[in-house]
Amino acid sequence: MTTATTASSFAQSDRAAIDVVQIDLAERSYPILIGQGESLWQEAHAHWPKGTSAVIVTNDTVAPLYAKALRQRLEGHYPKVIEVVLPDGEQYKNWETLNQIFDVLLGQAADRKAVLFALGGGVIGDMTGFAAACYMRGVPFVQVPTTLLAQVDSSVGGKTAINHPLGKNMIGAFYQPKLVVCDLDTLKTLPAAELSAGLGEVIKYGPIYDMAFFEWLEANVQALVAQDVEALRYAVRRSCEIKAAVVSADETESGLREILNFGHTFGHAIEAGKGYGAWLHGHAVAAGMVLASHLSTKLGYQQDAQFHARLVALLEQAGLPVQAPVLDATNNAQRYLDLMRVDKKSQGGAIRFVVLKPAGKAVTEKVDDAIVANLLNELITA
Amino acid sequence: MTTATTASSFAQSDRAAIDVVQIDLAERSYPILIGQGESLWQEAHAHWPKGTSAVIVTNDTVAPLYAKALRQRLEGHYPKVIEVVLPDGEQYKNWETLNQIFDVLLGQAADRKAVLFALGGGVIGDMTGFAAACYMRGVPFVQVPTTLLAQVDSSVGGKTAINHPLGKNMIGAFYQPKLVVCDLDTLKTLPAAELSAGLGEVIKYGPIYDMAFFEWLEANVQALVAQDVEALRYAVRRSCEIKAAVVSADETESGLREILNFGHTFGHAIEAGKGYGAWLHGHAVAAGMVLASHLSTKLGYQQDAQFHARLVALLEQAGLPVQAPVLDATNNAQRYLDLMRVDKKSQGGAIRFVVLKPAGKAVTEKVDDAIVANLLNELITA
Repeated sequence: MTTATTASSFAQSDRAAIDVVQIDLAERSYPILIGQGESLWQEAHAHWPKGTSAVIVTNDTVAPLYAKALRQRLEGHYPKVIEVVLPDGEQYKNWETLNQIFDVLLGQAADRKAVLFALGGGVIGDMTGFAAACYMRGVPFVQVPTTLLAQVDSSVGGKTAINHPLGKNMIGAFYQPKLVVCDLDTLKTLPAAELSAGLGEVIKYGPIYDMAFFEWLEANVQALVAQDVEALRYAVRRSCEIKAAVVSADETESGLREILNFGHTFGHAIEAGKGYGAWLHGHAVAAGMVLASHLSTKLGYQQDAQFHARLVALLEQAGLPVQAPVLDATNNAQRYLDLMRVDKKSQGGAIRFVVLKPAGKAVTEKVDDAIVANLLNELITA
Repeated sequence: MTTATTASSFAQSDRAAIDVVQIDLAERSYPILIGQGESLWQEAHAHWPKGTSAVIVTNDTVAPLYAKALRQRLEGHYPKVIEVVLPDGEQYKNWETLNQIFDVLLGQAADRKAVLFALGGGVIGDMTGFAAACYMRGVPFVQVPTTLLAQVDSSVGGKTAINHPLGKNMIGAFYQPKLVVCDLDTLKTLPAAELSAGLGEVIKYGPIYDMAFFEWLEANVQALVAQDVEALRYAVRRSCEIKAAVVSADETESGLREILNFGHTFGHAIEAGKGYGAWLHGHAVAAGMVLASHLSTKLGYQQDAQFHARLVALLEQAGLPVQAPVLDATNNAQRYLDLMRVDKKSQGGAIRFVVLKPAGKAVTEKVDDAIVANLLNELITA
């Protein structure tokens, strides 16, 4: 569905109901379950992959909150449940931390029938997925995203990776989970900054694909910020539906899928330039979307004078930054360009951007350095 | 074809001819080209994947011999050719060395249209393939194997990996090359130990799949040891044909493909137990095949009293060790069992072995620890 659902329509929905969004990739297809409470976990239980052991990979922030409950749910299903608790933070999304997962797996003699469970946000999901892709050349894994960002974006679609000092997500694999379980109850413990970071990715789906959803977001942003669970349920479901449609059409990012990176080329430069972890990914993407929207206007693709102001207003109401930072006091535009040139969308030296043509539909295009530099010089001031 | 070709029949073959063996994996299909001289490289040229740059990954032994020639062949086809020279040896098949490839790729701003070329033996092929699988979540790669072992086994079939201190090839991916180019001329520079290591994998294909090939090997082992290029050409082609048939039927080792690991469960224990690099892989596999053949007899599957002696004689004529080493002076059998339990074929604690049922056909089976321990105690003495 691409029509907007109003706040009043979801207010009457059955709280025990589970929303299911299917990712359709032939033999790699899998469901995303969205819900809360026992009804959700009973349904998840029916979908657990078979295996000789379950390995919960989580971090030291999430573990005290949810690891025990997940362990209890898995113990009835797997002969052995193992836990790996990693340090929390984007700065640990590297080979050394990944290797801690392998050390535990091999130390516990986990075999090819081990099933990994990623319990946490995007960093945990990306690292656990990549560990599952590589361990013994591939073991099954399940995403249990506990942040809004992970539920609406990173846990869905099979992109897994770690960072390299010279670039974000440079080492990774396309590797699909067997199942994604989005427990809306976990969003209740989310700090405001993490919630807004997730809303950045939610808002993204409007301009690239569905302006009716953008309008719904404008009408419901206060409910989302207030963590109204039914507003969040709809936002998660609609985001997953859009992501599912895009990923099912282009699993390995050879075309359409690139539109999901709206705001990300600028955003990745912000994250790398400030040092991973200094800016939350969703915040960097928000500031990046503002730049990408400006770029779309500059290229003549986005002529609705209202839209840009609406995007900025919505991001601000969601608690997101709309001003990209200075990365280099003496030559800021060049620094942005250098950082963006190692982006994975880059080909043969030219930097490719996702632009709106117009709002509601995104395309990917190479843009001359000079145009981008002018834009950066114009919009980013110390 | 599964019939034997005699030495006299290949003696008349056209030296300029190129043998092509096709790996049939739907959209991941690719050819193996086997030949020598300009005719081979002209054919290869027609198959190079498109790309913005070519990245030759090789080691400090192979680079002085063949890197310049390959660079010259690639320069006409790719705008940019980059070289990465790694230290030579199984002990460098680890994350630190793999990371050197990523450092160069990112340092040179190589993008998703970069094509990696693995120029070297099995270690280079496994690491380059894994780097290609992971870099930006996957870039194309070409295998240019320069050892017999790599030409007949490791370069074909898409198994890529690095070692972990707790186990060989534990971190990796199934990732197919776009092309394999086997230049028989490179075998002329191969040290005798490397040649025999390759013959270990060649000999393997007889007992697991094709006893007519085993007979051909018995008749031609002297020519192979003397590096007769036409004997080698047939051995490489027939080995690749058998591997192609097996891999095409089971890409990700969920069944049939496991038979290619005949001798490898014991062999991996020898490699790990002696420390990676102390025993060449092909030598460890040879000693492992002798144990696996004994195990087949002990289980009652291999009743031809002659076969075992023929296998040992053939391995010895090929210059291969047939006696497995002591790995632990006080409790050798237990040490072997412990090392074998982390093998990727292991499931739920039971160790699975490839056994002959009978010679010419292999199956995979769980075997009780007690039976294996008895065998090891019987056959391995200090």
